Amino acid sequence: MPSYTAPVKDMQFVLHDVLKVTEQDIPGYDELEADFTSAILEEAGKISSEVLQPLNVVGDKEGCVLENGVVRTPTGFKEAFEQMKEGGWTALDCDPEYGGQGMPYIMGTAVGEMMVSANMAFNMYQGLTHGAYSAIHAHGTDEQKAKYLPKMVSCEWTGTMNLTEPHCGTDLGLMRTKAAPQEDGSYKITGQKIFISAGEHDMADNIIHLVLAKIEGGPEGIKGVSLFIVPKFMVNDDNSVGARNGVSVGSIEEKMGIHGNSTCVMNYDEATGYLLGTEHKGMRAMFTMMNEARLGVGLQGYAQAAVAYENAVIYANDRLQGRAVTGAENPDGPADPLIVHPDIRRNLMDQKSFVEGARAFTFWGAHLIDRHVRGGDEAADGLISLLTPVIKGFQTDKGFEYAVAAQQVYGGHGYIEEWGMSQFARDARIAMIYEGANGVQALDLVGRKLAQDGGKHVMAFFDLVKSFIKENGGNEEFDKAFLEPLKTASKDLQAAGMYFMQNGMKNPNHALAGSYDFMHMFGHVCLGLMWAKMGKAAMDALEGGASDTEFYETKIATGKYYMARQLPATGMHLARIESGADTVMALDAANF
Amino acid sequence: MPSYTAPVKDMQFVLHDVLKVTEQDIPGYDELEADFTSAILEEAGKISSEVLQPLNVVGDKEGCVLENGVVRTPTGFKEAFEQMKEGGWTALDCDPEYGGQGMPYIMGTAVGEMMVSANMAFNMYQGLTHGAYSAIHAHGTDEQKAKYLPKMVSCEWTGTMNLTEPHCGTDLGLMRTKAAPQEDGSYKITGQKIFISAGEHDMADNIIHLVLAKIEGGPEGIKGVSLFIVPKFMVNDDNSVGARNGVSVGSIEEKMGIHGNSTCVMNYDEATGYLLGTEHKGMRAMFTMMNEARLGVGLQGYAQAAVAYENAVIYANDRLQGRAVTGAENPDGPADPLIVHPDIRRNLMDQKSFVEGARAFTFWGAHLIDRHVRGGDEAADGLISLLTPVIKGFQTDKGFEYAVAAQQVYGGHGYIEEWGMSQFARDARIAMIYEGANGVQALDLVGRKLAQDGGKHVMAFFDLVKSFIKENGGNEEFDKAFLEPLKTASKDLQAAGMYFMQNGMKNPNHALAGSYDFMHMFGHVCLGLMWAKMGKAAMDALEGGASDTEFYETKIATGKYYMARQLPATGMHLARIESGADTVMALDAANF
Repeated sequence: MPSYTAPVKDMQFVLHDVLKVTEQDIPGYDELEADFTSAILEEAGKISSEVLQPLNVVGDKEGCVLENGVVRTPTGFKEAFEQMKEGGWTALDCDPEYGGQGMPYIMGTAVGEMMVSANMAFNMYQGLTHGAYSAIHAHGTDEQKAKYLPKMVSCEWTGTMNLTEPHCGTDLGLMRTKAAPQEDGSYKITGQKIFISAGEHDMADNIIHLVLAKIEGGPEGIKGVSLFIVPKFMVNDDNSVGARNGVSVGSIEEKMGIHGNSTCVMNYDEATGYLLGTEHKGMRAMFTMMNEARLGVGLQGYAQAAVAYENAVIYANDRLQGRAVTGAENPDGPADPLIVHPDIRRNLMDQKSFVEGARAFTFWGAHLIDRHVRGGDEAADGLISLLTPVIKGFQTDKGFEYAVAAQQVYGGHGYIEEWGMSQFARDARIAMIYEGANGVQALDLVGRKLAQDGGKHVMAFFDLVKSFIKENGGNEEFDKAFLEPLKTASKDLQAAGMYFMQNGMKNPNHALAGSYDFMHMFGHVCLGLMWAKMGKAAMDALEGGASDTEFYETKIATGKYYMARQLPATGMHLARIESGADTVMALDAANF
Repeated sequence: MPSYTAPVKDMQFVLHDVLKVTEQDIPGYDELEADFTSAILEEAGKISSEVLQPLNVVGDKEGCVLENGVVRTPTGFKEAFEQMKEGGWTALDCDPEYGGQGMPYIMGTAVGEMMVSANMAFNMYQGLTHGAYSAIHAHGTDEQKAKYLPKMVSCEWTGTMNLTEPHCGTDLGLMRTKAAPQEDGSYKITGQKIFISAGEHDMADNIIHLVLAKIEGGPEGIKGVSLFIVPKFMVNDDNSVGARNGVSVGSIEEKMGIHGNSTCVMNYDEATGYLLGTEHKGMRAMFTMMNEARLGVGLQGYAQAAVAYENAVIYANDRLQGRAVTGAENPDGPADPLIVHPDIRRNLMDQKSFVEGARAFTFWGAHLIDRHVRGGDEAADGLISLLTPVIKGFQTDKGFEYAVAAQQVYGGHGYIEEWGMSQFARDARIAMIYEGANGVQALDLVGRKLAQDGGKHVMAFFDLVKSFIKENGGNEEFDKAFLEPLKTASKDLQAAGMYFMQNGMKNPNHALAGSYDFMHMFGHVCLGLMWAKMGKAAMDALEGGASDTEFYETKIATGKYYMARQLPATGMHLARIESGADTVMALDAANF
């Protein structure tokens, strides 16, 4: 059975040594003193390890069960959810006006990583509620906010997002769910939605569905889509729960993983719904949820790799098999532990350097959101909008890849469900698909975000890399190990962008055929930048006389690994991109 | 539900256009006329599609059940196994002296691909029997051969291989299973073996276990390991099945995939066993099985990718979602099929170019085995010995990667078990682990095979690449699209080998830390060579006035894709290798 120990020290390093949160001019960040964040992270780590993690395998084995229209969550989930609510964990970064604790999003992100590592399927019930909370908070009327938010902040009521229909996923313009306007200003919603995570379950008194539908007589396609609040139970004027609304679960899906979360077919049969935001502008309101959700999914990617890595390290230290090629390291034992073998280390270092790099990248992303939302910084908003598809697409691809790599360390035992390593891989797999499959993220990045606002956000990103290199050059060791590889990778990325500009105009396929590789290159450059920042922060700490030299030296060594062994991937991606669309588009559909 | 259509035409292309089997001076190859092989492949395709494939999902859902010491295989498996036997499919490439059909191994390989694509878990019952057959055929006494082989050729009796114990997998020197010599020349075998595929089931009258054990008083470690034949039921002098032997199944494992195959814990309690081959030389005899098994597992890798790809193409043509960026291609429909989108094509072309390249590589490998076994060519034996870890390691890593990529084409539906795409990925996952985890393959390649016989096999491989390039240069289009990328990739591979030679002597970690990357580079160069050969064969066919121009043009286009978009990976692997072991070995075990 796997275990989980929260990486509090690594998180503190990112918050305080790298991002230096208390020095940032962002409202609320002045409170994030090291002792304060450490106390929160220790507590979050405790509930994650002691309450959520032991339920992870239980959730996988039992799954959710649908009986007579009611979904039963796995044994222990309900009690754990109560503990989450009581501990105030669902309210951490929510608006105090509605019962939240008002902490910055970066703290919600750090705590979120722990809970996802401990139990991804479980954490989705709260995660989706948070997304729905954000959409109502951003687009709801005062009345709607007063009605729904307090109970959603406390997770007495949970939330969902309803986009997909059987015949349409990415292409939401094909949507068939209808909204018929009623005299009282409400709508009757009718249609079927699929893949609705946490669509029905037994852990909340009410479920607030956010549903995309087309108002009858509205514009065709995506321009006629509106967003509605559709509660499972009607909410009375005194905010108590009333009669059942016309929404029900049709079935739940058998999936590859995240068995502990109920993935529902939801049937809306003249269900009462309330317009959220503006008529026909549903996509805009939905994107409030989706951007947050995409960051959250990018977090899921590396968080699964993180817990899988942690368990791979334990096994690699425990399992005795073979001898070190340079001479026995455990001469009194029957064999040496796996971790002496270079290829086991190569595998573990790939995982470790990715996980820690992705953590820094994700925390940085959360910090950009805080900078925008709390500090009104529009440039930060532009940058995170550019980086969101990278965080989502790159980190979930790599997160799955490394969850699989961690499983590999276990040999045959990795394939046996009893050991729990298969679950990390199976659970991580969904993150590459939902909230926009990774191919769609790549399309979003290259087709939209690159050119957004005249390309100013991508230019800002390159400036950031350039100025970091300029400001921190001069130390021979650091230049060679960190700055030079970063410079090369960044140049590769710029060359790819240049290729798109020069060739995409005459044939957009030249850009889109390279979009996936571009997303991966971009991810590598971002993690390269993060490692350069972490390497610098660790060197500064050592120079400043930090006592825990081993910790900081390990950071530098791990960074060097990433720069030497991961960043060279950008050259391969560039070659793929520069080969253009011709070989990609050559075949007639019938000849595949 | 997925479907399967056997790629008969693609296989015929490899056999006849590329390998030109009838022109090879190998006994038995003269019979492999196009009509003959086509008839066999068509029939094998039929039983694969119609009988085995429909049971694939059944096997996954039902799994195997252990009740009162008996393992029940999934519904329909037993009947299908009878059909396999009746059709003579289990005897295809076995020795006619024992009831086999005596066909070359390459035909067994082609047919094997189909059956693995159709139903991997099912095919393992026969595959393991074939491995055990080969070991007895190579190392058994005449009496042993006469006793066991006829029933194993017909699969009335099936076989297993028993290596792993709870505390030892790769490091078999730690083995504890004991063999006590008896006065009649037999042995009493006592111990526990785990991960025994097809260890117990209800489809055969007897199961012939090949078991590694240590004869009491023999040498320590791996040098004291011998191989034994341990039948489930004793075999009487008239070859009828007699009393139950002291071997029983303790439990079966819950696994990530291949649920249709029973993975057993086998308990040997003074079971009667018969020495196979020489005392204390068990590893040598076992390697007869393992090399064949490793090729078979390499085949499983791409065969799962092949069927997953086939289904991804169907979905990409069916599913309407979005519009081509260059203008609607299905203007009368609500949307265009997925296959118009460049990134979907990029994904499908990655899969297609790998699958077809790996098929050619594997068939070539089988041809080398035939050249050695039937033709006595020792150089061919040396070459396939070098390439075996590449076929196993590279092809199973990539096979899994592309089964996952095929699943991705389905979006959310790929994650739902009902659609069957998850099973391909889950089943393919085991191939990276069993018969020597891929890290062990890399170690075998770099630590043993490269230097084997003074490095002459790897030199022979490079000569082969060089002479192909030399003999086929001069056509500008072919040079640019095929030969130049092949030359570059091959140079990268040579540079990596050179790095190992120059640095591995002073510190073997410099070689072993790069072993995994080397295995992947090697795989790419092999597939590059295969695509160059296939490209040339297709061009020759077109020049020769072949009527099916579209087929050959598709081959050329797919080859160009591989050369342009897959081969550049060698540069990345070389950079990783040349960064050496320092960053890999930097951390103390406690700092991971």
